[in-house]
Amino acid sequence: MAFPIILDCDPGHDDALAIMLAAADPRLNLLAITTVAGNQTLDKTTLNARRVCTIAGITGVPVAAGYDRPLVGELHVADDIHGSTGLDGPAFGEPTVPLADEHAVALMRRLLLAHPEPVTLVPTGPLTNVAVLLRDHPEVRPKVREIVLMGGSTERGNVTPYAEFNIAVDPEAADLVLRSGLPVTVVGLNVTHQALVTPDVVARFRALGTPLADACVELMTFFASAYERVFGLPDPPLHDPVAIARVIDPSLVECVDVPVVVELTGTHTRGATVVDLHHKTGLAPNARVAVRLRAAPFWDLVVDAVSRLSGSPTAGSPG
Amino acid sequence: MAFPIILDCDPGHDDALAIMLAAADPRLNLLAITTVAGNQTLDKTTLNARRVCTIAGITGVPVAAGYDRPLVGELHVADDIHGSTGLDGPAFGEPTVPLADEHAVALMRRLLLAHPEPVTLVPTGPLTNVAVLLRDHPEVRPKVREIVLMGGSTERGNVTPYAEFNIAVDPEAADLVLRSGLPVTVVGLNVTHQALVTPDVVARFRALGTPLADACVELMTFFASAYERVFGLPDPPLHDPVAIARVIDPSLVECVDVPVVVELTGTHTRGATVVDLHHKTGLAPNARVAVRLRAAPFWDLVVDAVSRLSGSPTAGSPG
Amino acid sequence: MAFPIILDCDPGHDDALAIMLAAADPRLNLLAITTVAGNQTLDKTTLNARRVCTIAGITGVPVAAGYDRPLVGELHVADDIHGSTGLDGPAFGEPTVPLADEHAVALMRRLLLAHPEPVTLVPTGPLTNVAVLLRDHPEVRPKVREIVLMGGSTERGNVTPYAEFNIAVDPEAADLVLRSGLPVTVVGLNVTHQALVTPDVVARFRALGTPLADACVELMTFFASAYERVFGLPDPPLHDPVAIARVIDPSLVECVDVPVVVELTGTHTRGATVVDLHHKTGLAPNARVAVRLRAAPFWDLVVDAVSRLSGSPTAGSPG
Amino acid sequence: MAFPIILDCDPGHDDALAIMLAAADPRLNLLAITTVAGNQTLDKTTLNARRVCTIAGITGVPVAAGYDRPLVGELHVADDIHGSTGLDGPAFGEPTVPLADEHAVALMRRLLLAHPEPVTLVPTGPLTNVAVLLRDHPEVRPKVREIVLMGGSTERGNVTPYAEFNIAVDPEAADLVLRSGLPVTVVGLNVTHQALVTPDVVARFRALGTPLADACVELMTFFASAYERVFGLPDPPLHDPVAIARVIDPSLVECVDVPVVVELTGTHTRGATVVDLHHKTGLAPNARVAVRLRAAPFWDLVVDAVSRLSGSPTAGSPG
Repeated sequence: MAFPIILDCDPGHDDALAIMLAAADPRLNLLAITTVAGNQTLDKTTLNARRVCTIAGITGVPVAAGYDRPLVGELHVADDIHGSTGLDGPAFGEPTVPLADEHAVALMRRLLLAHPEPVTLVPTGPLTNVAVLLRDHPEVRPKVREIVLMGGSTERGNVTPYAEFNIAVDPEAADLVLRSGLPVTVVGLNVTHQALVTPDVVARFRALGTPLADACVELMTFFASAYERVFGLPDPPLHDPVAIARVIDPSLVECVDVPVVVELTGTHTRGATVVDLHHKTGLAPNARVAVRLRAAPFWDLVVDAVSRLSGSPTAGSPG
Repeated sequence: MAFPIILDCDPGHDDALAIMLAAADPRLNLLAITTVAGNQTLDKTTLNARRVCTIAGITGVPVAAGYDRPLVGELHVADDIHGSTGLDGPAFGEPTVPLADEHAVALMRRLLLAHPEPVTLVPTGPLTNVAVLLRDHPEVRPKVREIVLMGGSTERGNVTPYAEFNIAVDPEAADLVLRSGLPVTVVGLNVTHQALVTPDVVARFRALGTPLADACVELMTFFASAYERVFGLPDPPLHDPVAIARVIDPSLVECVDVPVVVELTGTHTRGATVVDLHHKTGLAPNARVAVRLRAAPFWDLVVDAVSRLSGSPTAGSPG
Repeated sequence: MAFPIILDCDPGHDDALAIMLAAADPRLNLLAITTVAGNQTLDKTTLNARRVCTIAGITGVPVAAGYDRPLVGELHVADDIHGSTGLDGPAFGEPTVPLADEHAVALMRRLLLAHPEPVTLVPTGPLTNVAVLLRDHPEVRPKVREIVLMGGSTERGNVTPYAEFNIAVDPEAADLVLRSGLPVTVVGLNVTHQALVTPDVVARFRALGTPLADACVELMTFFASAYERVFGLPDPPLHDPVAIARVIDPSLVECVDVPVVVELTGTHTRGATVVDLHHKTGLAPNARVAVRLRAAPFWDLVVDAVSRLSGSPTAGSPG
Repeated sequence: MAFPIILDCDPGHDDALAIMLAAADPRLNLLAITTVAGNQTLDKTTLNARRVCTIAGITGVPVAAGYDRPLVGELHVADDIHGSTGLDGPAFGEPTVPLADEHAVALMRRLLLAHPEPVTLVPTGPLTNVAVLLRDHPEVRPKVREIVLMGGSTERGNVTPYAEFNIAVDPEAADLVLRSGLPVTVVGLNVTHQALVTPDVVARFRALGTPLADACVELMTFFASAYERVFGLPDPPLHDPVAIARVIDPSLVECVDVPVVVELTGTHTRGATVVDLHHKTGLAPNARVAVRLRAAPFWDLVVDAVSRLSGSPTAGSPG
């Protein structure tokens, strides 16, 4: 019995692998892929979602575009990390997977209300779409099983010293999600930096020997060079698939229940997730925060997903 | 040729060891011990400085009291960590070391102007005294060789998720010091958490077999129980002596030159030191920030200092 | 040739008169009344809009409900001023004017795109609906002739010392509107406090001797008692109709072109409109700000509107 | 029996008249004039205090210099209003009144402790000196009868839309004074803008026909041209003497007891005094705030003071 999820993303190199993992793992039922502005502008992240589905042979999963900017203020993209297309590296042809004729939020709402059981939302980009969904359509709340998001950090950030990109792009949306009262799991940089794409990982992709695996190698090669340049980190962290892995097998990602608030007003810290691991703030726990990843079985999951999608007879009907 | 320093502190368990290290190491010339409100109220931190000097046989080093509250706002002490006396654990008799009849800032100013060579300031508490010294007495600037402070963090804080105690008590003072244009070295939690008082360390103190070493064991035992209770950390970090160690032997504490600003306005992050390790802010480097400690030789230094002060014929004339 | 407008409001006593003025004045073509949460919750402000239309005989103008809370944070209503219904005072029967089966933003968008000429938006409540319209539907921008809003102040506020209610309820929405680049006119407290409902004004309503005028007297009587209690002001300011009056006859409300920003982060000033009348900020003008009202002809307009709607043969076909 | 006061100022054109009024009125006993950085740098404001005393024949009143910058951050002067000297207009010779060899704060402390009765402090510049006095020397508190300061506003500011200059230069100092628990009276722009130097006022000075009165005319002429240029206001407000007048005759300046806080963190409102006239904040009253000036008797006081100092036999022994 596969677990129903909706992946809300801004591809992005690590989002690309998250799409593949979400589509290929037999324990998940990927109901939709929705897109948001973040790593690049909305038109680019949406095109990239369709490109990834096309090269991975993911069909039958609707792709819908959402918000093109945060709730408040202007969009800042991450082209230093993901390049001018948002998915620099491989050459992509024209995508054959179509764009749904429905706004991401409308699609999420419709699917949530229609599905017989509660659905898990997995946002791996800025939380704009999910925030608007929860704010404007409270009727979906009972149909949201959990929100497992990639974003934030218990330690340092990446876009500024204490703010992680997904949260920093739309702090008010993250604040709304974290105050929603729904079950929220936060998979932050502190844990995704335990999912480093080492040369060994690249070698495992390469050994698959398929065109999709080769594209993954090209994606990871570009991603590694960007992380080396910006952070001096030769093995880049594969953030977004860790959130998917948490849904597939919670035992892979150890969590603690603690208070998390988003800093909305700091001069140098806006967008920081302030995670109270030691009961210093007196606030009640409002999120489940990831603190440790079992890296070896995580990579098995990811490589297995790419393998499943790579031209095997079942590749055309994932999920 | 010993290196002249002034230790500005708020004892505090780890300050106590910093006093011993600063007084005993033959490479330093401890000109004065000044006190500030922080771990406890000023009257308690000042009494504690005199107690430590008394039990360690440190005579001839003036002890002067400074500010009893931060530049802005009210004082918050750390009695959860250091107890109601600020130095809970051992029993102390009446101190025989006197209190100087001069304000800490006046003493610092006088010593700086009088000393033939520039002097290193080592603040291990809130930066109130040093900030007022620099703001009100600019004539001392050429006589300040460097400010090597214990405070802040490149990672998480301790008093709130992102703020370290010494900075959080007086953020405006820290801001003034970091913007002073003088050479500033920041020894933060990220490095002092590499100076953990393990059972092995305690055993080394105990093996010294002197009354002073026994008092150190009692101090460390109380300190460990507080860290265990508050942070779930059985081996407490001995923060302040790491700043002294950096002055004694810079090779023990690896540093990088980066921008550091203090968050003065955040709702949940006031007092955080925002350390830009990856050139994300566009600011110019204004501080040398400690990133790694060589723990083994550090502990040799500390244990050696306690040993030197323990009843040896020269204990009464340190520095 | 009547001037097309859409009134976006949160009735509210002064909104009620704004509806009457907008519907009755022959120089305006009121395309729609949309509602937002503000003076009271959305269900109440929407019911109140329908009640006002019903008692005033305003038919043929669609009434649509919009957002039930601000973009960020929680809703705070003004029940101290407008009572538990949002329109305390008169007894209302069941409204006969229907609620449109369309979200306020969707209705505004549809009307803007369909109308042959640009339309003026007149928000007299929090700017949530208008902000979402502009953010999510940029295609309407060329069809917006101007936004003439009641909100803010060049002087003191009302909900806090420097913040006016409509802006304070949704500061981020106001910020978005003021940064939109569209022509924005701000009619704030500094001018609406020149529209005081004196006993003379009440006497003019009473002299009309119609049931609608009697209801207006009851509304103004409640409103006056609330202002007396909360602000010690016996003659309450009739805020919202001043924005309508500016559209009807710009010569009634003198304006200056200046920079206006919304304070989003202050500890005691969040939601203040910071109006730079003396070129102190170096910012470029982004709004037309009302500074003076010609009170006598303003009251003529308002009384005349109530008179027109009071059972005259044309009351059923306003606009 | 004259009323003992200390005037802490940053001359400044209106400070100049405040010095004359404080020195000449027989109901006051001016114990000292202390200076602070504000309208101009400390060296200039101090020189100006001595110049004013010299031309006015004020001898026997010690003049001492205080802080040259605010508690936090950098100094911003008001040279657009007061010119490059801080007292542009008349030609001044070398002052004969000496500078005291004591810091302003030390002098204030000494005088307060020595005087048999409590003394009123009248700060008419940034509150840096007074804040340090209260923070560092709590023993003076019982000797402070009241602090009657010129600063802030219940309405608009002058240096930014909501911040008045004296408070904006050192908001943390103002915050400390307003939270001190001592009796504080705030004479803000809302009231000093009722003390306009009209042509009639200038004519009264001119009619005195003395060299001092002529210098006052020159001061007022420069001041008026600056206000005309910066604020479009031909008759400039003579701020600082209003605080002195409140001490001389409280009936001249009507006050209310209300809560006042200083905005320390706003993006566009830092330094605003948030005066809660309508009990909106729930805070307890902590200040007496001036709301109305009786202008005619105020001007009588000021003109009378200039007259008394103008070469009359008693001019050399004011106070």
